[in-house]
Amino acid sequence: MNKIITISREFGSGGRELGRCLAEALGFAYYDQEIIIEIARRSGLAEEYVNSIVEKRPFTYYPITNAQTLTAAYTPQFDFNLKVYTEQINIIKDLATKSDCVIIGRAADYILRDYTPINMFIYADMESRIHRCRQRATEDEQLSDSKLKARILEVDKNRAKYYKFFTGRKWGEKENYDLCINTTQRKIKDLSNPISELVKTMLY
Amino acid sequence: MNKIITISREFGSGGRELGRCLAEALGFAYYDQEIIIEIARRSGLAEEYVNSIVEKRPFTYYPITNAQTLTAAYTPQFDFNLKVYTEQINIIKDLATKSDCVIIGRAADYILRDYTPINMFIYADMESRIHRCRQRATEDEQLSDSKLKARILEVDKNRAKYYKFFTGRKWGEKENYDLCINTTQRKIKDLSNPISELVKTMLY
Repeated sequence: MNKIITISREFGSGGRELGRCLAEALGFAYYDQEIIIEIARRSGLAEEYVNSIVEKRPFTYYPITNAQTLTAAYTPQFDFNLKVYTEQINIIKDLATKSDCVIIGRAADYILRDYTPINMFIYADMESRIHRCRQRATEDEQLSDSKLKARILEVDKNRAKYYKFFTGRKWGEKENYDLCINTTQRKIKDLSNPISELVKTMLY
Repeated sequence: MNKIITISREFGSGGRELGRCLAEALGFAYYDQEIIIEIARRSGLAEEYVNSIVEKRPFTYYPITNAQTLTAAYTPQFDFNLKVYTEQINIIKDLATKSDCVIIGRAADYILRDYTPINMFIYADMESRIHRCRQRATEDEQLSDSKLKARILEVDKNRAKYYKFFTGRKWGEKENYDLCINTTQRKIKDLSNPISELVKTMLY
């Protein structure tokens, strides 16, 4: 069975950067936006449109496994979104059978639970996250601290709802992960080598 | 300032063993039962008695910082326990100023917050914890699975109350730690080297 690392992360925590470093250090494939591109390719939809479906919280707050809720919440739009989600699950499973890989977000820890992946959660305090977002933003994307904070909280709220909807679990609850790493005031490039060594030990 | 690692841990998660390994690998002092011995020495009380005070949950569920509650909860026994707790805080601070060290439990992450320690939380699922407890128990300590589970839950409940009482925080909440490590089905001796390398990077 292939070796899988899944990375869930708070917005602005550097989880995506860490994932890329780990994939490079371990010689694993790296999947993030690639999943959206593949859904777009298979469905014929525009990437932007797929992104908007996948990034928005589902229409209901109840777990997807609750059939009664599904019936109640049914609309053609909901049905359409559900097809995109189902496609995403198939793609994530396909990727996991293809090679060793690092997958960012998208409830991959739950979708791939039969593959016994190493599941990581990356988080940081608000100040560090604002600082990190500011560093990677282009000049015309510069928001005030309060607007940036609101944006960070909004993205994470959507991630939590999305995760709850698909898994019935609470996003970020440490029991669902093998490693939770606080990147507050730390540089990802300093952490990535020792973390890759630790993950290697856990994988082999 | 000395380098400090604090380890909080669920009962049976192997946190204490990991702490000892880290102290050895990094050449740091290791403090666990030593703190009890020192309280006993300073106070003239029996070690066993000190242990029973420190391991039991405090008499009130409210944070120690809440003066009104203190007044309401005041009894001579409470006052006596408070002296032992205060002694413990002094000793932990003394140890931190003496040399680089690893300190197990006792809300040291909070007591030493001005020393910017690396704070770790070690946890595991119930099955692994039962297994680990069983391995280290002597023959006459062997309990049934259900009794062992009840004992594990009881110890952790006391730790959580103790932590809440002293810090006002929720025990085990990942935001209070730099690293949370799930030791489910893992051997501490396999993890300790890569973890010590990671902690070294975080400390220096």
